[in-house]
Amino acid sequence: MRAVALTTEQAQDALGGLVHAATREDEQRGRGAFAAAAWSSIAEPGDGVAGHLVRSLGAWEALEFVRGAHTDDLLDPTGPGGQALRAGLARWRPRLGVETLLEIFPAARRSGIRLLVPGDAQWPESLEDLGVHAPHCLWVRGVPDTLQRRPSVAIVGARAATAYGEHVAMEFAADLAGSGVAIVSGAAYGIDGSAHRAALAAGGPTVAVLAGGVDRPYPTGHSHLLDRIAATGAAVSEVPCGAAPTKWRFLQRNRLIAALADATVVVEAGWRSGSLNTAGHAAALGRPLGAVPGPVTSAASAGCHRLLREFDARCVTTPDDVRELFGALMPAEGRTGDAETDDHTRILDALSVRVPRSAEDIARRAGMARGEVEALLALIELEGKTSRGPDGWRRVVPR
Amino acid sequence: MRAVALTTEQAQDALGGLVHAATREDEQRGRGAFAAAAWSSIAEPGDGVAGHLVRSLGAWEALEFVRGAHTDDLLDPTGPGGQALRAGLARWRPRLGVETLLEIFPAARRSGIRLLVPGDAQWPESLEDLGVHAPHCLWVRGVPDTLQRRPSVAIVGARAATAYGEHVAMEFAADLAGSGVAIVSGAAYGIDGSAHRAALAAGGPTVAVLAGGVDRPYPTGHSHLLDRIAATGAAVSEVPCGAAPTKWRFLQRNRLIAALADATVVVEAGWRSGSLNTAGHAAALGRPLGAVPGPVTSAASAGCHRLLREFDARCVTTPDDVRELFGALMPAEGRTGDAETDDHTRILDALSVRVPRSAEDIARRAGMARGEVEALLALIELEGKTSRGPDGWRRVVPR
Repeated sequence: MRAVALTTEQAQDALGGLVHAATREDEQRGRGAFAAAAWSSIAEPGDGVAGHLVRSLGAWEALEFVRGAHTDDLLDPTGPGGQALRAGLARWRPRLGVETLLEIFPAARRSGIRLLVPGDAQWPESLEDLGVHAPHCLWVRGVPDTLQRRPSVAIVGARAATAYGEHVAMEFAADLAGSGVAIVSGAAYGIDGSAHRAALAAGGPTVAVLAGGVDRPYPTGHSHLLDRIAATGAAVSEVPCGAAPTKWRFLQRNRLIAALADATVVVEAGWRSGSLNTAGHAAALGRPLGAVPGPVTSAASAGCHRLLREFDARCVTTPDDVRELFGALMPAEGRTGDAETDDHTRILDALSVRVPRSAEDIARRAGMARGEVEALLALIELEGKTSRGPDGWRRVVPR
Repeated sequence: MRAVALTTEQAQDALGGLVHAATREDEQRGRGAFAAAAWSSIAEPGDGVAGHLVRSLGAWEALEFVRGAHTDDLLDPTGPGGQALRAGLARWRPRLGVETLLEIFPAARRSGIRLLVPGDAQWPESLEDLGVHAPHCLWVRGVPDTLQRRPSVAIVGARAATAYGEHVAMEFAADLAGSGVAIVSGAAYGIDGSAHRAALAAGGPTVAVLAGGVDRPYPTGHSHLLDRIAATGAAVSEVPCGAAPTKWRFLQRNRLIAALADATVVVEAGWRSGSLNTAGHAAALGRPLGAVPGPVTSAASAGCHRLLREFDARCVTTPDDVRELFGALMPAEGRTGDAETDDHTRILDALSVRVPRSAEDIARRAGMARGEVEALLALIELEGKTSRGPDGWRRVVPR
């Protein structure tokens, strides 16, 4: 195993043109950015012990600590934190020697991929809600500004979507993206792909969050779609170039989708769909969660109904329902179903279209007092729903 | 106008064989039953002033009061209650002389219709939750015992139902009725009819609540269905024989459906469907309310989605979901979508089907400590998902 031993200068060189100009001006930040990238290589996504260490010491210092420089100074092997750290070192150290960290950067540079780290102007602050589970950095293919677009909505769902689900995903994404809402999704087949495509067609911003390196289009069938996303939006990942999209990374990727979006909407999902994992992350982050209902006879909607039942997701049926989720639209005024259960209705019931009736007759039929009936008949006449003739009142049928 | 002036004996005669034997034994109750029937004729359903008066004085005494016997004694025209009563008298008195109360009973007797009043053994106590808006009596065509069947579920919905809605209504009603749950509905075309039919087909109890007199099948196209319902279940109404099903009475009928059932489920409903009125009554009564989701592209499900969004209805997708509503079944244990986001998954990700790998290699790939990996590999081997060979571990693909 070849251990990493880098000077600040070597780190700066390695970074090359990758780190955004604003951060390169500052040597300290450049070194930190290199270390953040290294952490994205040696710790699996969502590793809270790594996150805690980096937050406590800084990325560079935490990396040096892993290299063993100061183990004795910092590690209290008797405490519970010390035990977690020891387990962490056992996870991270085997990777320090295998992946040649310096090779990550040239690979990224060749593919035109940028590195964003916390503190960069374009770093999406919403990721900080993940606490120690926040990513160390983001590898961005495309336009980093897209990550700053607000409001943003995650539209996710089953790969095995139905025509209904894809239709709804497209309707929602096109409408929202058309009004400037950024559409975040996972670039998978089915719902994800429909959402990205509709956002692009609407000329709106869209972000694809990948489980593997952004230089490895996944699924490969969406290679062209990812090219198009990168042209005007962004494809991002927290794992470095070349990293494989493992099942674990897919599940952790879902927390990034939830954290990057102001609200998450699941369009179709089977009973055990990975989209429910994204929904769970949104709920855990306290972000609004919506689910699109579908036929109870459709297995592709079972997960959405489960979200409505078990996760208190909001039932969303229109793009405006989604806007309500993130507060861009106030809920429509509640209108009860019995708005017409009034004396008005009782009088209309008592009127005949053909036979003219006296107010007294109408009062008896409606079960109301004659005085009330006469007052209301005058109003109903004004509305054009009744007419008075020499023999009494008749109902007027609207044309 | 011909005013009603009856002795107790005349009232008893009028009742004939209508009132259930248990009540006929008691002259006082017989007189009360007659008066309750009279109230069902002179006051419109849901008239709270009438309900209050009958509850305060008793049905017979309240009827005598309306006839004017004791007006001066009881009426304080200056108080707000007095004003409501005066308005009530103005509503009720015009009907005392027109409808010949004595004719209601022979008409009912000819059609084999029974009268149930509060206090009868078969009176459904759940109606008392309506307070002063409870019906004065129920006119029952069929088997009065059906009203006592518990648990009971109201399955209601749009007349303009789709094939999907009718399918779900039938599936739910057949399953529930087959296990002895009474199905309450409104005998309308569409969802109501499907629910009744499936309950009958399953040999289960079903109750049709009508807006007009039970001697007037409505809709007329459901005349045969109502005959079948009456043969083993019951068709009931709070208005006497011959009464027309006016719009007002439909809306009030809905409160009886909600009050007779332990839970109400709306299967399909348009945005302004009358079923939402039934749902509103169920919610007002504190009874559990369920809504069946459907495609967001279907106008026939818009009302159900509205119930999920605005009325906090529970999303029901199966008959068991309905049983949960009225407590016959405990909710399934909440299972989160990320049950597999564990070390187990990370190790499986790190295994290859073809290439054997050492525990150290697997630990590095999984980003875990070697000790943990070795312990878990042993477990995973026991599950048959990995096999150990001379060169290391391989993943076993389940057949």
